[in-house]
Amino acid sequence: MSVKFQQFETIFKPKSVAIVGASKNSMKMGSIFLDHLKSIGFPQLYPVNPHETEISTLKAYKSVRDIPGQVDYVIVAVPAEKVKEVIEDCVVKGVNAVTVFSSGFSEFSDEGRRREEELVRIAHGKVRIIGPNCLGAFCAESKLNPFLPSLEDGRIGFVCQSGGNVGTVVNLGKRMGFGFSKIVSYCNACDLDSTDFIEYLGEDPKTSVIIAYIEGIKNGEKFLEVTRKVGKDKPIIILRGGVTSGGSKVVASHTGSLAGSSEIWDAVFKYTGAIKVQSIEELLGTALAFLHLPKLGGRKVGIIGMGGGAGVLGVDECEKRDLSVPVLTSETISSLSEIIPPINSNVKNPVDLAEYAMFDPSLLEKTLKIVAPDPKIDVLIMLYHNMSWDLGLLKKVEEIVTNINISKPVVAVLEPGIDLEEIQSKHLEKKIPAYNNLTYACKAIYNVANYYERRG
Amino acid sequence: MSVKFQQFETIFKPKSVAIVGASKNSMKMGSIFLDHLKSIGFPQLYPVNPHETEISTLKAYKSVRDIPGQVDYVIVAVPAEKVKEVIEDCVVKGVNAVTVFSSGFSEFSDEGRRREEELVRIAHGKVRIIGPNCLGAFCAESKLNPFLPSLEDGRIGFVCQSGGNVGTVVNLGKRMGFGFSKIVSYCNACDLDSTDFIEYLGEDPKTSVIIAYIEGIKNGEKFLEVTRKVGKDKPIIILRGGVTSGGSKVVASHTGSLAGSSEIWDAVFKYTGAIKVQSIEELLGTALAFLHLPKLGGRKVGIIGMGGGAGVLGVDECEKRDLSVPVLTSETISSLSEIIPPINSNVKNPVDLAEYAMFDPSLLEKTLKIVAPDPKIDVLIMLYHNMSWDLGLLKKVEEIVTNINISKPVVAVLEPGIDLEEIQSKHLEKKIPAYNNLTYACKAIYNVANYYERRG
Repeated sequence: MSVKFQQFETIFKPKSVAIVGASKNSMKMGSIFLDHLKSIGFPQLYPVNPHETEISTLKAYKSVRDIPGQVDYVIVAVPAEKVKEVIEDCVVKGVNAVTVFSSGFSEFSDEGRRREEELVRIAHGKVRIIGPNCLGAFCAESKLNPFLPSLEDGRIGFVCQSGGNVGTVVNLGKRMGFGFSKIVSYCNACDLDSTDFIEYLGEDPKTSVIIAYIEGIKNGEKFLEVTRKVGKDKPIIILRGGVTSGGSKVVASHTGSLAGSSEIWDAVFKYTGAIKVQSIEELLGTALAFLHLPKLGGRKVGIIGMGGGAGVLGVDECEKRDLSVPVLTSETISSLSEIIPPINSNVKNPVDLAEYAMFDPSLLEKTLKIVAPDPKIDVLIMLYHNMSWDLGLLKKVEEIVTNINISKPVVAVLEPGIDLEEIQSKHLEKKIPAYNNLTYACKAIYNVANYYERRG
Repeated sequence: MSVKFQQFETIFKPKSVAIVGASKNSMKMGSIFLDHLKSIGFPQLYPVNPHETEISTLKAYKSVRDIPGQVDYVIVAVPAEKVKEVIEDCVVKGVNAVTVFSSGFSEFSDEGRRREEELVRIAHGKVRIIGPNCLGAFCAESKLNPFLPSLEDGRIGFVCQSGGNVGTVVNLGKRMGFGFSKIVSYCNACDLDSTDFIEYLGEDPKTSVIIAYIEGIKNGEKFLEVTRKVGKDKPIIILRGGVTSGGSKVVASHTGSLAGSSEIWDAVFKYTGAIKVQSIEELLGTALAFLHLPKLGGRKVGIIGMGGGAGVLGVDECEKRDLSVPVLTSETISSLSEIIPPINSNVKNPVDLAEYAMFDPSLLEKTLKIVAPDPKIDVLIMLYHNMSWDLGLLKKVEEIVTNINISKPVVAVLEPGIDLEEIQSKHLEKKIPAYNNLTYACKAIYNVANYYERRG
């Protein structure tokens, strides 16, 4: 592992943390950090406040310089104009990295931009800065996660140029059934940028899939190089903020970023192989698919369901995004014809079990076993429409789908609105990601198929 | 009201119903209909089965002709080859309308198509036919709703060329907070087609908004004329099944329909003013907005939220679909500046209350009161991101938003995955539709704004 990797390890899993701006007011951000770390029994924890001698029963220090022993990571939550001095102290102290929580920098005013540039000059690569105007590093393993009580350990690394979107993504991720290896909210990116974190997550053995919310990039050339390289081993899924003209203006006042044109970004996606998504739902839906599906052999989809209308919409959603739903082989069709009554059903693809599976769920098992080996298909979509609304029936179907060995990758789609938590965990044990939105499921399959097709 | 309207009233609210194909096997479709109607105490209910004299303690008749007195509505669930005779009996009896549940017609084979054509010849407009291959009429008021235990009374009329999609839509509708006036599953449309039902729902005083899932249309000219006329008073939202090449092939074996090209349909949407949607989620999301929002003055959106990243995505989602998020007037900006601390916030639009509203929720109330009257905006989006995950905070915010009078239409957007049922009903009382998906919320606002802009 590189020196740089070790430096980043120390950000996410520090042994000693100082919090500059912790105070006796428990509603202040510094205090929220402090109280969280204290509550998990974090050992080397140092509140810094020139006006206090003790905060939350911990000895308080006047400056980072006054702390005895090594300080790995510093969280700064003091007004913008006071940050400069803190960074100076951190340089003297030999701190590894600093998260500047404070806002009022390049996102705010020209003066703020000059202030931000000064921080970088002072730190000069000796102390690495995350932010300013951000939440910094989160890590389920090291429990470095104030604000995120629901953060669960997992294999997704999340690089986020926002504070608030971190919570939104973590909460939805939990509902969808996955946790996170590392999360960083880096916003203004005066020093460390998305590129640095993507490079680190590329090396991080705990991270399998990288997702990112990005508003702008400082060093385009390095971003291209790193993202292309890391993306060969780990899928990198990117949601851009500021894709519209209005959005790009807001980006300037949110993180002081230049959003970049859609043309440039299209070239970026093409060159790097990163996966472009358009909403938080698609970002997480695609991540879920990458986490659980194996390398797909291609884009040919077999659909199995109960109900003709759901099948029609299933084919439409697949073909809209360049997935095909081919007619099955004549052998498969003839085997299906032997078990599925002909009226009101379909044995060609989409396979429609109509009402028959409702009366005899074992028909679904037989159908899955016949369809899965068909050489015409690469991946199966199991539509739970008309089976989802009766929880008893849904559980019966779940038992069938998750208890047999299916020789192709499978994606399950419940009716919209059905709570995924009902069935996700059992499905994921069998590597079957479940969705409650057909559009996002098909987008995810497309994104996975396309990634492996490009990567080879 | 027209004679035709009375005929349709009798379909959805019949006084007497015969069920052909009811049997002692309670798993048969005919029996499911019978048992449901019996369980609600439906008075004039006649099982028809030539082999039985009594079914479910009711006298069974050999044929519809043998039933004493008027028969308004007949449900037919016998094999396809036996339907012809039933229709003959219905003509003799002077039945108003028949739902042919049975499949095995034009969706199945050439012989089936001939069979279907024969039914129409026999009925010859004297008996109207719904189907075949369909579930027929549902009506919460008359409780004509076997299969749909969760069907609630409401103001949405649903015209559905599928059986299964009825359940999917009803269940999602309930979760989103609305019920249905009338639903019809008509599938093969050998006689009555979407046009007829749209015309009826246009006259139905209980229906305010018409939604449709359509795979194909028989009489294009009449559809254009009726839909254009009805659409002037009531929004008609259409989800097409079979929009792709593969989907249109499946449509042929699902309802025997010709899906029609996208070019033709684009012209249809343009001419009729019907609203085109692309998924069940968008169909219902748009219906929810039409149900609760007043006529919008235009497409200019004010966004209020807590968190810069959510605001950026909000603007992107608006502008992607031709809604604008203009900078507020200088008066509004200066009033907001007086109450919202400058750092980490935004007072221009999107209005970002940052963390300040978390500590002082009354700030949200003041902000809403300042922003709503701004002449630069027509509709407000209230982003609950970073407020949704803490149910206590969410409830506090809900109380604020739903307890003040806001002078502009408002749409609420929760973080993805949050259960709408938590907050929907209280919001709807104040005519604020809530969504847990930003994309569908913005699509709905666009669809509503566009409808009123076109209609004038």
